[in-house]
Amino acid sequence: MVDERIDIVPGTKFKIIQDKNSFSYGTDAIFISDFAKAKGLVIDLGTGSGIIPLRLIEKKKVKKIYGIEIQKEVFDRAKRSIKLNGLEERIEILNMDLKKIDEKFPKAHFDTVISKPPYLKAGGAVINKRENFAISRHEISCNLEDIIKTSGYLLKPQGKLFLVHRPDRLTDIFMNLRKYGIEPKRIRFVYPKPERPPNLVLIEGVKGGRADLKFLKPLIVYNKDSTYTEEIYKIYDRK
Amino acid sequence: MVDERIDIVPGTKFKIIQDKNSFSYGTDAIFISDFAKAKGLVIDLGTGSGIIPLRLIEKKKVKKIYGIEIQKEVFDRAKRSIKLNGLEERIEILNMDLKKIDEKFPKAHFDTVISKPPYLKAGGAVINKRENFAISRHEISCNLEDIIKTSGYLLKPQGKLFLVHRPDRLTDIFMNLRKYGIEPKRIRFVYPKPERPPNLVLIEGVKGGRADLKFLKPLIVYNKDSTYTEEIYKIYDRK
Repeated sequence: MVDERIDIVPGTKFKIIQDKNSFSYGTDAIFISDFAKAKGLVIDLGTGSGIIPLRLIEKKKVKKIYGIEIQKEVFDRAKRSIKLNGLEERIEILNMDLKKIDEKFPKAHFDTVISKPPYLKAGGAVINKRENFAISRHEISCNLEDIIKTSGYLLKPQGKLFLVHRPDRLTDIFMNLRKYGIEPKRIRFVYPKPERPPNLVLIEGVKGGRADLKFLKPLIVYNKDSTYTEEIYKIYDRK
Repeated sequence: MVDERIDIVPGTKFKIIQDKNSFSYGTDAIFISDFAKAKGLVIDLGTGSGIIPLRLIEKKKVKKIYGIEIQKEVFDRAKRSIKLNGLEERIEILNMDLKKIDEKFPKAHFDTVISKPPYLKAGGAVINKRENFAISRHEISCNLEDIIKTSGYLLKPQGKLFLVHRPDRLTDIFMNLRKYGIEPKRIRFVYPKPERPPNLVLIEGVKGGRADLKFLKPLIVYNKDSTYTEEIYKIYDRK
């Protein structure tokens, strides 16, 4: 039995179908879609529920968004969410392996690539038995380098990659970005509280850009008294 | 005429001679010496006034500290500061080019390397006419790669490098650390105020270490009301 529910995509009027037993979108997907200056032809690598395309499609400069998802069941659900909102013309969900992206799209085809990759290394901790969970969370079907290599292939010159990841992978992220010709240009750390270490990092890379990394002010989720900060309310559009 | 003054090294009982017209130590030198877990045989690349050795020499696990300084006049002043404190046996200031370090020390000789390199690229903005200023601030006599390459040569296996720099050079720092076999292991950003971008980054790298980057909580200098934070008072030992 499928145990689904329908939520509203924060900051939009769109609906999204989620499987209660599977991997739901998190604050990270909301933060990266807030951080991303998406435009033109956009592709979301590992789109999951389709949350990122649904968050970005109303941006003025966005023409069309493709969402790639390797897991058949997750892909089906995202596709139904797009249909539920009547967005089939503008958001296309594809059930495919991003490592075979060159069979579908030519090189330098996209203005914007966005991704929330699996954060955890495969083979490290105990992996959840339900495959959906595992593939969404662990580097099983693709790893960080696959995502960045694919982005390097897909992006037009001066095209932008927006990535959210755990800060502890920052060295690998920078190494791979340089390796595939994408220069880190803008970076923002997400702090759960003002006096804690960051738990997420948001990165903008520019294909063929020159070295010039700009740090943004921290994105702080909770105030010291455990209430949400003003910026979180703004991002979630709950005002 | 030399226009000198004598200050107290924050958090210690030591005196330090500074030239009012030249490059004085800044908060960055204080922060990196607070961040650094120095031990054994220590070397400070580009020691300037000798502030970092004077801050670290009282640490229990530190045996001896060498300070390298290419500028003759700056070297002389640092040497006099060491003598003024009667520390000639424990801190040795050397007037030399760090690019020729292999003429003085064998490979893998040090437990700890520490450095506050010149932050600015040579040839960028207008360079101050007084050479001391220029060499301390701009990558004239050595650049970031020289510092990291030298550190890679000097460090024993598992030896530690502590570096302070501007956040906008973080990509280059990571690239060079990996290039010379030093893995970034611990990182802390310094924020002038809670809601501003960081203006300094403190990094610990381990020679031959495995990939595992740990982020520390932010070091915030001023409260919103422009008073110093508790941690700054603690670092400066002004309580």
